[in-house]
Amino acid sequence: MDFLHCMELAQAERLVDEHLKQGMVGEEEVELLAAVGRVTSRIVWSVDDLPGYARSTVDGFAIRSEDSFGASESAAALFTLIGEIAMGLPVCQTLQPGQAMAIPTGGMLPEGADAVVMLEYTEQPDAESLLVQKMVAPSENVVRRGEEIAAGTVLVDAGVRLCDKQVGLLAACGCSRLWVKQRLKVAIISTGDELVDIQDTPREAQVRDVNTYSLAALLTRWGCEVKRYGIVRDSFEQFLRQLTEATHECQLVLISGGSSVGARDYTVPAIQALDRPGLLMHGLAVKPGKPTIFGLAGSVPVFGLPGHPVAAWIVCEVLVRCAIEKMIGVTTNYRSKKVSAVLSRNLPSLPGRDDFVPVRLVEQATGYVAEPIFGKSGMIGLLAKADGILHVPAANSGLYQGETVWVRLLGGEGV
Amino acid sequence: MDFLHCMELAQAERLVDEHLKQGMVGEEEVELLAAVGRVTSRIVWSVDDLPGYARSTVDGFAIRSEDSFGASESAAALFTLIGEIAMGLPVCQTLQPGQAMAIPTGGMLPEGADAVVMLEYTEQPDAESLLVQKMVAPSENVVRRGEEIAAGTVLVDAGVRLCDKQVGLLAACGCSRLWVKQRLKVAIISTGDELVDIQDTPREAQVRDVNTYSLAALLTRWGCEVKRYGIVRDSFEQFLRQLTEATHECQLVLISGGSSVGARDYTVPAIQALDRPGLLMHGLAVKPGKPTIFGLAGSVPVFGLPGHPVAAWIVCEVLVRCAIEKMIGVTTNYRSKKVSAVLSRNLPSLPGRDDFVPVRLVEQATGYVAEPIFGKSGMIGLLAKADGILHVPAANSGLYQGETVWVRLLGGEGV
Repeated sequence: MDFLHCMELAQAERLVDEHLKQGMVGEEEVELLAAVGRVTSRIVWSVDDLPGYARSTVDGFAIRSEDSFGASESAAALFTLIGEIAMGLPVCQTLQPGQAMAIPTGGMLPEGADAVVMLEYTEQPDAESLLVQKMVAPSENVVRRGEEIAAGTVLVDAGVRLCDKQVGLLAACGCSRLWVKQRLKVAIISTGDELVDIQDTPREAQVRDVNTYSLAALLTRWGCEVKRYGIVRDSFEQFLRQLTEATHECQLVLISGGSSVGARDYTVPAIQALDRPGLLMHGLAVKPGKPTIFGLAGSVPVFGLPGHPVAAWIVCEVLVRCAIEKMIGVTTNYRSKKVSAVLSRNLPSLPGRDDFVPVRLVEQATGYVAEPIFGKSGMIGLLAKADGILHVPAANSGLYQGETVWVRLLGGEGV
Repeated sequence: MDFLHCMELAQAERLVDEHLKQGMVGEEEVELLAAVGRVTSRIVWSVDDLPGYARSTVDGFAIRSEDSFGASESAAALFTLIGEIAMGLPVCQTLQPGQAMAIPTGGMLPEGADAVVMLEYTEQPDAESLLVQKMVAPSENVVRRGEEIAAGTVLVDAGVRLCDKQVGLLAACGCSRLWVKQRLKVAIISTGDELVDIQDTPREAQVRDVNTYSLAALLTRWGCEVKRYGIVRDSFEQFLRQLTEATHECQLVLISGGSSVGARDYTVPAIQALDRPGLLMHGLAVKPGKPTIFGLAGSVPVFGLPGHPVAAWIVCEVLVRCAIEKMIGVTTNYRSKKVSAVLSRNLPSLPGRDDFVPVRLVEQATGYVAEPIFGKSGMIGLLAKADGILHVPAANSGLYQGETVWVRLLGGEGV
């Protein structure tokens, strides 16, 4: 199979997009803290005005601003002090002309007051009098009711993956429970006569089943519920039985191929043996990632991923992720965190093929330098060493040393 | 309290560092996938060589490279084909001079072979003969046993927060279970007469308890086990009782202040009433974050955070985090993901004070532009709108428009 017979990535993305139903998973209501990392299934709006009352931003005295007009250090305005505002208690009095009340930062302005004069611009000749030595403008040192958020304002759209920096705003607006999309159920089946599970000791000629675990970590980060089916060996019939079961139990199936010819030979006929439409793509013009397979058993997408762990990871990041976001109903375009960097060396590439190259990011005074990391085929330590992935688009015949490039950060430290 | 009487951030960091014991939390053994986001408590090394056997990187024929010397398209070397290597099965035969065996990608080289010739450079005149039309160098198309990782190689140091891109390497090397640091138990106590829990409807002059939730989200992301003590109102005695209980039940205590004077007044005497050494810092030269308090009840650090939610978050990010990483025993220096950006406007700042400014990152062809976001004191939507936090160090009297700056990314999308 050469790249001429492979499907270009952009076309594969369209194919995946066309065949999957937007937001097909159900919804559930969860508590605010449990909603972090989940995707909203409904628009979230503010229940209340924020702040819920006109609030002082300083320690001082609530007054009617017009009563301070003309006041200065040499000609202080005299007010009658009628009391003190306590935090958390409603204020019953209404401020009449010439009256003032002491107010703490965050305190609620009394009816009639429209501004606060700071403590340092006042003097108290006695317990019932206040001298104000500065003119105060209407709304000065005050956040008006609803000034930050009015009740009914949209806080978060539907289809947004919530992050913890949004928790404070949602808490303030009374969103203690949210409707979110259910977790997508994803099956991972490993194939390959040479594979053993990671807790087993490989005998000669055997290797550990890496992809089940690295893909599970990635999918878990994306909020999926992963069901691991383990390693299927032996016969085509057994593989087909396992695959059929997975398409019934899960909403998306990943077949993580061993690199054996036998394992590769199974995936295509097995997908063809499932419900229609069956096989839709065989071969992807992505490096690494060429032996990628995509099909649909009824409405359940099935991806056959390359056996090479770095290739499997990258195809999962660039193509399987489209399927997942579409099915969950993420409406904001997915944008991985990315950084600009200067490329450290020429990076030749074939036009018509999308290349993804692991890079190390080296910090310099003016920004990052991106250093591509290479390794022999099958080398597994590349991702662990890399800080990000550099995309060389299909339209390019490579990138040049010194060029500014965008690097997708490898996420997932959870920090 | 003015900034002259506050402690500089660098000094506060040293104070925290001096008073806390490195890696004081215990350890536990967990499965590989459960270790993602956790901190290793022991060095992780490879159990086995990787690969565990000399492996072919192509489909072709295993040979002794010296037998191909001098071979070319016009003068092919003749080999005797003695069999086919199956994936996952050990190879019993030893290759003698002039012999070859068919081998798939990933297959194990037989004894005696040291290279693989690709399928496309061969011809098979009959079932037992092979013509090789190309010279092959020793180790060509082969990854030697242990070439990527030798048994005993350190894969991950102790004190490292694991991320999912490392899972593949660990799986390949047989690290199916890992020793990690236990979760740090952190108490959050809210104080403030004006606070109500987020599921309650605030009456006039009341606000919802934002900090308990936004800080819990942040601490959960850092792998802590958060115990929320809810809102303490009423009396100093009740507050002291709750605080004492928290220092007995948890390993670190955050007091998230309401903005009321009463609440602020409680924290200092309460810390002084606990076990020695008690109060160690009152006031931090950080904007926002001035009213920060730090003390130690025996060996349990207690932080009094500002009531302002953005300030509480930032102090947690820049100072409390140092305490947490020290106690868990993160030995790699903590580095938040950061990006370089060009500053969109002048940003004046007082020397001697560390400023942290929420910024939006705007993508341009040559990289990001950082646009500071401002809001009235107490505004809570700033973080939700921001992509990152810009640090103006204490030594600076500000930053200039057009300067290249580093912006810490606000993390936590979990994607």
